[in-house]
Amino acid sequence: MLVVMEHGATDAQIARVAEVIREMGYQARPMPGAQRTTVGLVGNDGRVDGSQLEALDGVAEVIHVSKPYKQVSREWKPDDTLVTIAPGVTFGGPTIPIIAGPCSVESEEQIVLAARQVRDAGGAALRGGAFKPRSSPYSFQGLGREGLALLALARRETGLPIVTEALDEDGAHRVAEVADCIQIGARNMQNYSLLRTIGRLGKPVLLKRGMAATTTDLLMSAEYLLAEGNTQVILCERGIRSFDPATRNLFDLTAIPLVQKLSHLPMVADPSHGTGLRDKVIPMGRAAIAAGADGLLVEMHPNPEKAMSDGGQSLFPDQFARLVRETRAIAEAIGRSLAAPPGTAPSARG
Amino acid sequence: MLVVMEHGATDAQIARVAEVIREMGYQARPMPGAQRTTVGLVGNDGRVDGSQLEALDGVAEVIHVSKPYKQVSREWKPDDTLVTIAPGVTFGGPTIPIIAGPCSVESEEQIVLAARQVRDAGGAALRGGAFKPRSSPYSFQGLGREGLALLALARRETGLPIVTEALDEDGAHRVAEVADCIQIGARNMQNYSLLRTIGRLGKPVLLKRGMAATTTDLLMSAEYLLAEGNTQVILCERGIRSFDPATRNLFDLTAIPLVQKLSHLPMVADPSHGTGLRDKVIPMGRAAIAAGADGLLVEMHPNPEKAMSDGGQSLFPDQFARLVRETRAIAEAIGRSLAAPPGTAPSARG
Amino acid sequence: MLVVMEHGATDAQIARVAEVIREMGYQARPMPGAQRTTVGLVGNDGRVDGSQLEALDGVAEVIHVSKPYKQVSREWKPDDTLVTIAPGVTFGGPTIPIIAGPCSVESEEQIVLAARQVRDAGGAALRGGAFKPRSSPYSFQGLGREGLALLALARRETGLPIVTEALDEDGAHRVAEVADCIQIGARNMQNYSLLRTIGRLGKPVLLKRGMAATTTDLLMSAEYLLAEGNTQVILCERGIRSFDPATRNLFDLTAIPLVQKLSHLPMVADPSHGTGLRDKVIPMGRAAIAAGADGLLVEMHPNPEKAMSDGGQSLFPDQFARLVRETRAIAEAIGRSLAAPPGTAPSARG
Amino acid sequence: MLVVMEHGATDAQIARVAEVIREMGYQARPMPGAQRTTVGLVGNDGRVDGSQLEALDGVAEVIHVSKPYKQVSREWKPDDTLVTIAPGVTFGGPTIPIIAGPCSVESEEQIVLAARQVRDAGGAALRGGAFKPRSSPYSFQGLGREGLALLALARRETGLPIVTEALDEDGAHRVAEVADCIQIGARNMQNYSLLRTIGRLGKPVLLKRGMAATTTDLLMSAEYLLAEGNTQVILCERGIRSFDPATRNLFDLTAIPLVQKLSHLPMVADPSHGTGLRDKVIPMGRAAIAAGADGLLVEMHPNPEKAMSDGGQSLFPDQFARLVRETRAIAEAIGRSLAAPPGTAPSARG
Repeated sequence: MLVVMEHGATDAQIARVAEVIREMGYQARPMPGAQRTTVGLVGNDGRVDGSQLEALDGVAEVIHVSKPYKQVSREWKPDDTLVTIAPGVTFGGPTIPIIAGPCSVESEEQIVLAARQVRDAGGAALRGGAFKPRSSPYSFQGLGREGLALLALARRETGLPIVTEALDEDGAHRVAEVADCIQIGARNMQNYSLLRTIGRLGKPVLLKRGMAATTTDLLMSAEYLLAEGNTQVILCERGIRSFDPATRNLFDLTAIPLVQKLSHLPMVADPSHGTGLRDKVIPMGRAAIAAGADGLLVEMHPNPEKAMSDGGQSLFPDQFARLVRETRAIAEAIGRSLAAPPGTAPSARG
Repeated sequence: MLVVMEHGATDAQIARVAEVIREMGYQARPMPGAQRTTVGLVGNDGRVDGSQLEALDGVAEVIHVSKPYKQVSREWKPDDTLVTIAPGVTFGGPTIPIIAGPCSVESEEQIVLAARQVRDAGGAALRGGAFKPRSSPYSFQGLGREGLALLALARRETGLPIVTEALDEDGAHRVAEVADCIQIGARNMQNYSLLRTIGRLGKPVLLKRGMAATTTDLLMSAEYLLAEGNTQVILCERGIRSFDPATRNLFDLTAIPLVQKLSHLPMVADPSHGTGLRDKVIPMGRAAIAAGADGLLVEMHPNPEKAMSDGGQSLFPDQFARLVRETRAIAEAIGRSLAAPPGTAPSARG
Repeated sequence: MLVVMEHGATDAQIARVAEVIREMGYQARPMPGAQRTTVGLVGNDGRVDGSQLEALDGVAEVIHVSKPYKQVSREWKPDDTLVTIAPGVTFGGPTIPIIAGPCSVESEEQIVLAARQVRDAGGAALRGGAFKPRSSPYSFQGLGREGLALLALARRETGLPIVTEALDEDGAHRVAEVADCIQIGARNMQNYSLLRTIGRLGKPVLLKRGMAATTTDLLMSAEYLLAEGNTQVILCERGIRSFDPATRNLFDLTAIPLVQKLSHLPMVADPSHGTGLRDKVIPMGRAAIAAGADGLLVEMHPNPEKAMSDGGQSLFPDQFARLVRETRAIAEAIGRSLAAPPGTAPSARG
Repeated sequence: MLVVMEHGATDAQIARVAEVIREMGYQARPMPGAQRTTVGLVGNDGRVDGSQLEALDGVAEVIHVSKPYKQVSREWKPDDTLVTIAPGVTFGGPTIPIIAGPCSVESEEQIVLAARQVRDAGGAALRGGAFKPRSSPYSFQGLGREGLALLALARRETGLPIVTEALDEDGAHRVAEVADCIQIGARNMQNYSLLRTIGRLGKPVLLKRGMAATTTDLLMSAEYLLAEGNTQVILCERGIRSFDPATRNLFDLTAIPLVQKLSHLPMVADPSHGTGLRDKVIPMGRAAIAAGADGLLVEMHPNPEKAMSDGGQSLFPDQFARLVRETRAIAEAIGRSLAAPPGTAPSARG
């Protein structure tokens, strides 16, 4: 950590900063410059809170050189973490699973059909929301516990593991009874109570990047999960807020190699929310794999025109089959392969 | 709601859109244009979910003409809502309360001293966090229930009403036992489970704008509170994410007159988080009042250099007194006045 | 300047960084940390280009401690710069000039009437575009040289000094013959050829912040003008790009006290472009003055319904008179006053 | 174009809007809704300026249904435009050219060596700046005319066509004498005088997206070039401003399929500026091709540690060779191929 003093800071102000650093238990190393003096804090293991230093007289800025996270970093664990949500469905290794399914679970017929279509096309896991965070209180909020039961049924019918979202503490316990991987949505990325609760449940977690989250913020939120003892964490890029209304979000694919260099955790991409436009899901799914994504999360509906939510960005089943074919070609071009659906031969092709 | 068809959409596609609109229970009004056809949906009361229409073939875009919120709007209730959190401390009327206090409750001595300083300078309510959302799991997370007890003590000593944040369902019930106004923080603005829980508690609520929230998003989240029957809602601008690292957030003061025109709810501003820089709090507090804010929420600490969080943006007590003097002059210049601390004569001056 | 090495950088890589710093003519000061080593570059006067250091092996990041600008900074010149564009119309001192007028000069009748309305209401300078940067090549592009002649006529009729924009080298010379202050628009803030040309013309300049410009970027562009020997520079906040479509731009009023602390140059605000909404111009004009702006730049049209550009954000004449009255009250509340129109008694009130 | 009236707009206000639309030469079609009335403007060919309507009493918003551009749109020309800058080097068809070279031309030795390395690795064109837009007036500004002469020499030595930037009118004429394709940089995307000048020069143009430009803004700027009669325009995504400081810009790859659907012009991507990080150029170059880019623009320097600008994001020659190999594999996976350097057999591989 570096404390940059204002131009014209007095010797007494500089000495006070050094004193506070020493009181905090670290070494202080002042470094006079041509324009201003900087005081280095030496010994930071990533857990120093700089706000006390920012408050001192004569301080212009506190610059963090050490990363503010710890257990999620490559410094803590250099090797890639593999997260396995079902036999053969592993994130972070050479094979790449594709998770697909409708935005919401709507009925037995819908979710079982969707699961079959996902599996037949080559998807490795089923997504579908039972608890839905909706911006309007008047919109469909999901089937709740009934939706979870239908997801369990779809798994029995197809063998696909289930990824589904939890919105609150009570829901997290219910979701954990059914899901193979618990999703934390973008709006809850900094809901620290929920992160702590889910961190303790002992299930793999898929953590989506918040709409205003930097990659550092995303890693800090993952740190909450690891601090509770859960290392089975998959990160997910799903687009951030930007100024161009042409897409629902701005899909930040550079975040993938960026985070993979900083952290040992696997990172997947969601081109459905990342673009919000059905006809951009295939090209951007290809791009995500080319950028190095460890998986995809995609919305597909047996009949998007009848979807109760997100119909406009959901793929038709035949489009999903095309997505699998095209991303498989990209994966092979970079020396990886797609994960096969559980229970199928790994060489099966959609 | 207007459904814009793609250039070259077929008659069959246009007819299908009209048919779906009628199936939804509304009237369809096609309007051919020089470049493309638009189909109007007539009869929307603000609760139509357009995603089904977006999914139809040949649809380029769905444009919302009706506002997606209802009970928070001026159309629903033309007159300003007044929110009273203690006798004489009312938001939305001619007098403007200033809420101040430390980021976190740290000790009895600290919070009681802070409360006295707030009151003596002319502040009308005390803020202070017992439950703190921190980006690092290793940072100080607040004193919890003990912090609530200390806030209650500070109220007994000074008469100032208490504004404090709840982070989760369990905490919301505890906070409701003590607080005069429950704060929902920026990171939880779209935590819909928490919004519903707090909406049912029957206490005034201060809802902060999320870092990536549009003003429409903020109003939609407030709609969750009103949909639970709670109309005692104060909105708060506290800065959004932007590209200039010179300030912690980008303080969007235009949001104040914008929201006040669209909604009957009062709106206050938080220049401490809005700027993140102690020496910008006074000028931007003045600017907020000049823009029409119905109150301020400000961080002040008896000794910012010793603060356990947000020391760098907390005012010193004498700076807070200056803030009150200067914002009073601005309030009077626009024909309003500052609310006096409860139990003091309204003409008292700091 | 601080060169932060990657975790695990070798001694040879650190030595190489120090060697390159010394080759550049500065001192190198390595500082080992718990997680990573930082190498300080000592002696930077604000003109070191860090890109060579960024390219070295083992370098994670280059952090700029010295400001990259020089002559615009308070370190270079501690006292406020006053920019006088006509007798009595000075920016940066205790009195605050308001510049107003139509987006475009459209006719003799329009511009002379507008100038009289500006002057009668208490405005101190006339704005109006002769050369207009328009996003569509098919939109009205301004009257050009004829527009400049009409501005000169309006000045003769009212005594108001003229602020008008130049778009290119040829136009800059023509504008300099007529204008009292040459405006550089937001889209040209980083048109360095234009900055250099205008820097040499010896006229006061009003430089608008670009839509994606940080405050540092704005100051760097001003540095181009000062580097050509022109210190008569007024900066202008006019809103930046953000994600909320509710306003045309996001009006960043915190930039005003921020830049005023870093630089000796005066800074004004343009609430017309800053909001893009006529009914937000008055509250945000008040807020700008309360934040400490050294002037306002406002669009007013004798008949906004007939305006050839920006009609929707232009004030009606009676609204402009109200703006002057309300900002005068704010200015007086903070111990400043509005500049009177040239040739009128300073106590005149609109 | 749709004019949305405020809730509570009077019949007279609605009638006035309809009247103004008819005065403008179009048909007006009022459509009453449950919450508010909308008035459609029928007959817009993409050139209606809505600002006059925005100014009318009772108008809440003007919504553009027609695109504001014309000649760049697929409605104007459905088939892809092919832009050929040298024999065999065509953008917009099945083969994909890679343009590479240093940020700045620095010396004969440097640029000729760079050109050979580009060609030997499989690049199809040479980039290199003679006129450099630099944020600091004290940074190296390019070799100017001497730099152009060195580029011409490098072309004679290698056969590679030249892409280089023009900053102003005078420079544009000089650049046109040498370059095979004139680049307009991000900072000048809305420098309309420069767009008009370059539009008249009759040379292929590469137009980079501005840092705050929406995809619509980019297409509007291209419209300026086409309006001058030049259809040989290549668009370029190079990253936009966002809130995460981890990368220099936010590389918006979704813009590629988005623009390709709206426009017939080819679109390339610049992963060097798009990320600002050398080790992200290869994965994001692969991702750009997977998303459908019609070419790449990449910074490569024979010795990045000695580069006079952008050293930190420039590839080493062996990294560039790897980029070519990996993007070739991606191109083939989606049924395209890389363009060979001019004069070599198309099957040559780097």
